[in-house]
Amino acid sequence: MGIITISREFGSGGRELGIKLAEKLGYKFYDKELIALVSKEGGKTENYIENVLSKINDYAYTPRNSFTFYTKEQKNLTDELIMERKVIGEIAKKGNCVIVGRGADIILKDQNTIDIFVYSNMQSKIKRCKEYAKDEDKLNEKELEHKIKTVDKARQKLYVMLGQDCWGKKENYDICINTTNLNISKLANGLAELIKSI
Amino acid sequence: MGIITISREFGSGGRELGIKLAEKLGYKFYDKELIALVSKEGGKTENYIENVLSKINDYAYTPRNSFTFYTKEQKNLTDELIMERKVIGEIAKKGNCVIVGRGADIILKDQNTIDIFVYSNMQSKIKRCKEYAKDEDKLNEKELEHKIKTVDKARQKLYVMLGQDCWGKKENYDICINTTNLNISKLANGLAELIKSI
Repeated sequence: MGIITISREFGSGGRELGIKLAEKLGYKFYDKELIALVSKEGGKTENYIENVLSKINDYAYTPRNSFTFYTKEQKNLTDELIMERKVIGEIAKKGNCVIVGRGADIILKDQNTIDIFVYSNMQSKIKRCKEYAKDEDKLNEKELEHKIKTVDKARQKLYVMLGQDCWGKKENYDICINTTNLNISKLANGLAELIKSI
Repeated sequence: MGIITISREFGSGGRELGIKLAEKLGYKFYDKELIALVSKEGGKTENYIENVLSKINDYAYTPRNSFTFYTKEQKNLTDELIMERKVIGEIAKKGNCVIVGRGADIILKDQNTIDIFVYSNMQSKIKRCKEYAKDEDKLNEKELEHKIKTVDKARQKLYVMLGQDCWGKKENYDICINTTNLNISKLANGLAELIKSI
């Protein structure tokens, strides 16, 4: 039984790698599906959860201690994270899966997961974002670079919220892969072999 | 044709991984051999070169500018590094090889190398050092931890000398592998498959 978590820089191809790796290994894949599960659990819409997660950025560094009153929005965020933790725990119990994002590596820290971090240089990330973007979402290179940095900052802050400021630090992962100039499908094949070997 | 460079934390099993990876891929392996080549080139003994390399630690942070006179020892060190750079360039020209250490990733920066960094947690490094140590070299855990930190500091400083303060920073590598609790032989098999795929 194997649980693989993938954390990734925005535009590095980490999600695509996760999907193909799961296919290759015959594992289940969770990402948006995970949100759908969280959403179902809380009886809220998927859009609402997405919206809440995007606000983690502001939330993570709000000064607070045990005497601080949470705003209603902050209270909701905490509830979502508790729920997400629960759902990820349930997914892990089912076994063989690839979970992309959502701090699953931290949430499942005590389990024997294989934790992967996917990154690449900025030029390569911008190129991938351009390729993936729908026509209505086209941004210029400067806007894309800003978006990449903003999304990654939010991801890092999710880890701070989860109590571990270790997003992107190699010591936190078993394998770190630089996807600059790499073909993700080929990489997924090789990575599946590496994972089977260890 | 492939050139693989391996940088590694002391005790992480990186050298063993390099040897087994080279075997698996049918590539040549360079490490001590590299020193022997440098040595031959300079007409000096292997021990002398080892001794010189061990002094890089002190040398790297010696304040200097174009008006600074090098001491004789520093001058020798600079000569060695120039020679080493030349030898690594010659090795790379011959193709298919695994080069462990010696800043080969930096020296061959403009070539299409696959750069790997091997690391693990301190407990695992101490365990490996204990297993590898000859009877006459036995150190206690505290001494081993000190040795590991000292050697790694010297390795980092070699990179500073080569003009790139990027030793151990994931952005500088294609693949980073955490060998904590891993069997190096099995890992070498999987890593060879991954390398063949990209």
